[in-house]
This record gives sequence, C-alpha cells and structure tokens, in this order.
Amino acid sequence: MTPVERTGDAAQDARVARTRADVSRVALKVLTDEGTDALTHGHVAELAGYSKTTLYTHWPARVDLILLALDAIGEMPHQDPTGDLRADLIGELTFFRRAVLDYRLDQILAVMAQWASVDEMARVRDQLNTEAQLPIRGMLAAVFDGVELEAAISMLAGVVACPTIMFGAVPEDDVIEAAVDLVLRGSKRKRPS
Amino acid sequence: MTPVERTGDAAQDARVARTRADVSRVALKVLTDEGTDALTHGHVAELAGYSKTTLYTHWPARVDLILLALDAIGEMPHQDPTGDLRADLIGELTFFRRAVLDYRLDQILAVMAQWASVDEMARVRDQLNTEAQLPIRGMLAAVFDGVELEAAISMLAGVVACPTIMFGAVPEDDVIEAAVDLVLRGSKRKRPS
Repeated sequence: MTPVERTGDAAQDARVARTRADVSRVALKVLTDEGTDALTHGHVAELAGYSKTTLYTHWPARVDLILLALDAIGEMPHQDPTGDLRADLIGELTFFRRAVLDYRLDQILAVMAQWASVDEMARVRDQLNTEAQLPIRGMLAAVFDGVELEAAISMLAGVVACPTIMFGAVPEDDVIEAAVDLVLRGSKRKRPS
Repeated sequence: MTPVERTGDAAQDARVARTRADVSRVALKVLTDEGTDALTHGHVAELAGYSKTTLYTHWPARVDLILLALDAIGEMPHQDPTGDLRADLIGELTFFRRAVLDYRLDQILAVMAQWASVDEMARVRDQLNTEAQLPIRGMLAAVFDGVELEAAISMLAGVVACPTIMFGAVPEDDVIEAAVDLVLRGSKRKRPS
C-alpha cells in the first residue's frame, strides 16, 4: 500500500465518520421530536442533506437507523454525590426526570423495547439501561444488597419510569421524595455515617 | 323506515361487529407476536381473511389498527383479595408478571407510549393503565395515602415494569417479595387488623 492510498483511506474514513455523526444526530432528533414512524431513510436523508442511497448503503434496515439514532445519545447527566444518601437519591431521580423530558426517554425506552427481538438492539438497550442505573445502584448499595438491592433499584426507577411510560406524565417533587423516604425507611441496614 | 330496512340494518350492524371483532383479535395477535411494524393493513387483512379495502374503509390509519388491536385486550386477571395485605400484593404483582409474559405487555406499553401523541391513543392508554392499577391501588390504600400512595403504586408497578421495559426480563419471586416487604416496612401507618 502506498502513502497516497493511505492518505486516501484516511480522508475516506473521516468522511464516513462525519456522515455517521451527522445522520446519527438527525436520526435521534427525528426519533424524539416526531416518533419512530417518522424515522425513515427518506425523511432522515432529506433533513441531514445526504442522498437516500448513501443512507441505504450504510444503514440498510430501519432498525439500523434506530440503532444509529441511539448512538447519538450522549452521557446522561447524573447527580454529583454529596454523601447525604437521601439528598443524592432525590437528586439522581430528579436528573432522571429531567432526562425523560429533555431526551424524551419515554419514546427511547418504547422504541428499544419494541425492537428488542433484534439481538443488536437488545444488546444496546441492556447496555444503555445498565449504564443509566449505575449511579443509583451505587447509592443504594450502601444500604441494600442481594434481591433487596434489585427490588429497590427497580422501585426507584419505577417512580419516574412508570408514570412516564403508562401515563405520559412525570412525578412531582413530593412523590419522588416520598418514594426515597419509603425506601430508606424500609432498609434494615443502618445508613453508613 | 320500514321493517325490512331495519332487518337489513341489523344484519349489516351484526356483520360490521363481527368484522371488527375478527380484525381486532388478529391485529392484537400480530402486535404481540410480530411487533408494531408487522401491524399493516395488508398483513392483518390477509391473516383475518378480509380485503385490504375493507380494512382501509373502517380503519384508515395505522393508529386506527393499533387502537383496534388494543380493543381486543380483555379484562386482565387479578389476585382475589384474601385480606392478608402482604400475600395479596405479592399475588397481584405475580399476576402482573404473568400478564407481561402472556400478553406481551412490554410490547403493548411500548406501542401505546409511542403513539401517545394521538389523543385517542393517550385516552385509551390512560384508561387501560388506570384500570390495571385499580386493584393494587385499593390494596395499598389500606396503609398509604396522598403522595406516599402514588409513590408506592409506581414503585410496586416498577418492580415488574422496569426490568420488563428496560431489560426484557421479568423479576424472580424473591425480588417481588423483597419489594412488597420493603414497601410495607416503609409504611408509617399500622396495618389494619
């Protein structure tokens, strides 16, 4: 391989990476603003300023477009731990509620659940949700373990996720606080000082 | 209107009702077995043995087909209350878990969340979820009220719904039991004897 060819490859790689980043960002915007049904090759191509052929070449199936959109989800914002478990849990759930509204996590969760029969989607979903739960898992591990820890994580995630998915509404501050207090009162282990 | 015409109308009404029931059942089966993307007029018409034209006449949009599928969801099975709050809550969550598997509630919840920008879908979703939560709301009302009651309902629903939606997995018995115990330990009100 000659240096010229290497330069050509590098330029080509950069172009592909730029296209991927552009299309990914637009696809996520379509998904959250307009819903899954609007996430078609034609619509995304038009908004991103690429040809439909380019999109079909790199991402032939609709599930590829959805996976590409999920790629654009950045790091979710999390509560910086203060050491006060109650405040940290409330803060983390408040960040989760904010992310539901800002990133339309109800739509993202729904579309991932719906395409989970595709292995790659199940993998991406599990990874995104595992990462998203890491901070709250770490906090709750101070006072729970085993099946209680698993239950407490689902319960606190549920306080935000259930009304979101089931009623399209996020919980008020006082419901989040009540949930955290309920979980902490139910812990058999003493809080670390 | 003459008697003959009334007979004709009645026969016509019966035919429409039968068509609706047939198509509704098939549409729900497609939705749960194959997912939303398979829920097209052509596919449902073929499986139900009606013409595509008939389907388009009665249910012109795809969201109409989805709403029709949701029509076929019958009464969800619920725990018969025994008076033992802990046992009743565990029983109810176990029924919920069974329903998730039998009716693919993860897919149903996902598709309702996804189409909730359509007013009629939001209405149907709110109604289905409100009805589904009634028994557990009644049970928890014995030991909680106000924001604590709302929090406890979302938390116990979350123990089944969160792993379902987020990881495509239902909780084991011991996680359900841990969640119920955690909530009951957290209740400030004495259990009614």
